[in-house]
Amino acid sequence: MPETNRQVLLKRRPNGMPVPEDFAIVDAKLPEPDDGQVLLRGIYLSLDPYMRGRISGQRSYARPTELGEVIEGRVVGQVMRSRHPDFREGDIALGGYGWQTYSAVDGKGLIKLDAAAAPISTALGILGMPGLTAYAGLKTIGQPKAGETVVISAASGAVGAVAGQLAKREGCRVVGIAGGADKCAYVTGGLGFDACLDHHGELAGALDAACPNGIDVYFENVGGAVQRAVYPRLNDFGRMIMCGMIAEYNDADPRPGPSLVAAVRKRLKIQGFIVSDHAALRPEYLAMAAPLVRSGALKYREDIVDGIDNAPQAFIGLLQGRNFGKLIVRLGDDPTRS
Amino acid sequence: MPETNRQVLLKRRPNGMPVPEDFAIVDAKLPEPDDGQVLLRGIYLSLDPYMRGRISGQRSYARPTELGEVIEGRVVGQVMRSRHPDFREGDIALGGYGWQTYSAVDGKGLIKLDAAAAPISTALGILGMPGLTAYAGLKTIGQPKAGETVVISAASGAVGAVAGQLAKREGCRVVGIAGGADKCAYVTGGLGFDACLDHHGELAGALDAACPNGIDVYFENVGGAVQRAVYPRLNDFGRMIMCGMIAEYNDADPRPGPSLVAAVRKRLKIQGFIVSDHAALRPEYLAMAAPLVRSGALKYREDIVDGIDNAPQAFIGLLQGRNFGKLIVRLGDDPTRS
Repeated sequence: MPETNRQVLLKRRPNGMPVPEDFAIVDAKLPEPDDGQVLLRGIYLSLDPYMRGRISGQRSYARPTELGEVIEGRVVGQVMRSRHPDFREGDIALGGYGWQTYSAVDGKGLIKLDAAAAPISTALGILGMPGLTAYAGLKTIGQPKAGETVVISAASGAVGAVAGQLAKREGCRVVGIAGGADKCAYVTGGLGFDACLDHHGELAGALDAACPNGIDVYFENVGGAVQRAVYPRLNDFGRMIMCGMIAEYNDADPRPGPSLVAAVRKRLKIQGFIVSDHAALRPEYLAMAAPLVRSGALKYREDIVDGIDNAPQAFIGLLQGRNFGKLIVRLGDDPTRS
Repeated sequence: MPETNRQVLLKRRPNGMPVPEDFAIVDAKLPEPDDGQVLLRGIYLSLDPYMRGRISGQRSYARPTELGEVIEGRVVGQVMRSRHPDFREGDIALGGYGWQTYSAVDGKGLIKLDAAAAPISTALGILGMPGLTAYAGLKTIGQPKAGETVVISAASGAVGAVAGQLAKREGCRVVGIAGGADKCAYVTGGLGFDACLDHHGELAGALDAACPNGIDVYFENVGGAVQRAVYPRLNDFGRMIMCGMIAEYNDADPRPGPSLVAAVRKRLKIQGFIVSDHAALRPEYLAMAAPLVRSGALKYREDIVDGIDNAPQAFIGLLQGRNFGKLIVRLGDDPTRS
């Protein structure tokens, strides 16, 4: 057991795209668990687009990270010492404790993981928050029906990959949008989407060709030019699942959006959601998805970066679309992988 | 019985705001009803914002009016000759037959009106399409709850006046937006809204003052600067009932809308609708609203213009916000009013 806890703190609020100097990497004292807590050794840290909002200081659905604080994040870790009756040394658990290698966390906020059921890193991706995000957006807003056309941006990403596979299982035509030929090849060949368009190319004509019957559901993860290409192609009664707009998170001022006259004329539904509002769907999602992950019917890809010191650069890459699959930082050894 | 049928035809498609020269007023031969039809003498013609879309020729939810055709519109009229078993001479009925003084119409598309139940002109307003529009938008999209703040643009108009009164009955704080002091005085004093803001003034600060708890539901009839002032004041889980955007109907190119980043962050729902999709709600709306209209608990105001020759100018005034209440053209004598 080391004597120090390595942490990434927010040093200053990013101005536009974050840079490494916005973060400080420090060694703190190893924390002591209080009664009811456990000492968790981090194995995997999840990096996700929502974190850009937390470090911006803007009023939002969650408390922003303050300057000098450890940046928030979900971690899969191993219990090193337990002062909570439900956890024993060696247990693997999921919790939200931030960009650091160790943490003393309340046992009641931890979820014990069964390493035999699925690789423990999936609790951060396809069987975690991103998977549930895809499920909740489709179920509560998009409601795709067999035969409809569903377009998904950031299609190779942690949320988009699940959303597309779920829509395929509903019998939809599913068209992904991703950055680059490699990602597009994975989205069609690996994930089974019907088509995938490279957003570096000309999207309008490519969408027309790939969506001959227009677009019924758009799972929005990106915003910007991708949104401007998709929006005018939405059919009557089209639904926009507003999950994220990562292309615009670094803007100082909000960009204008599409004219809403079309929303009236075509009876569009444009609806935002946050996965934490839909925690109640977690059991039904896992009951459906976990067996499919085990059987290989639901596919996923992880982009694992080694070492907490690389977290800031990996996060910047995420905002630039440089990750390929669910972005995870390995904080320490995974005892379940041999 | 005259020998001619006076009609307003679409002469050319308007370029921006329509002008009288876009319309042609002609005398046609009195039509002969076929078997199953009746000859209807028009009494009241409804003028409504949706007509701007029909004469523009754009692809939309309804077939556009072609050049040289009679412009479409709902009419309350009197049966002069009947070749349909359900109608007799003298009956009062509501149908959609356009800007003309006479029409031979299929009996199956007509709704017989009971002049004793409510003034027959209300079948074009509070007990007609505009009233049902207000009801359907609130019921299927806005779903306001007691204590919430509801903002309604074009608040003295045919739809807005009903929407606000219905939201008040749900126990909401209701704030109208209208053009000018007279309309605002009517919206608060006559219709009982909690406040009404003049959109000719500075809206942002006025909205802050009138909506100290933010805005939960926005019933959108206007678009433009009013939308830009309301949108940033929507609360988390706010709903935008996209009913119309009359301020933008004469634009050659669509104007940009608001940034949708806020739709994600605040989990907004922005949803368009067209009343004809909700015809099934008509019986329940009338069962609720007709007694309230008769008792005076639901108030309405009509702006009645005399003579079909004045229809084009009245319609232009509607697009400019010059009407005050439900705009109706009196095509001929109302035998139910003494």
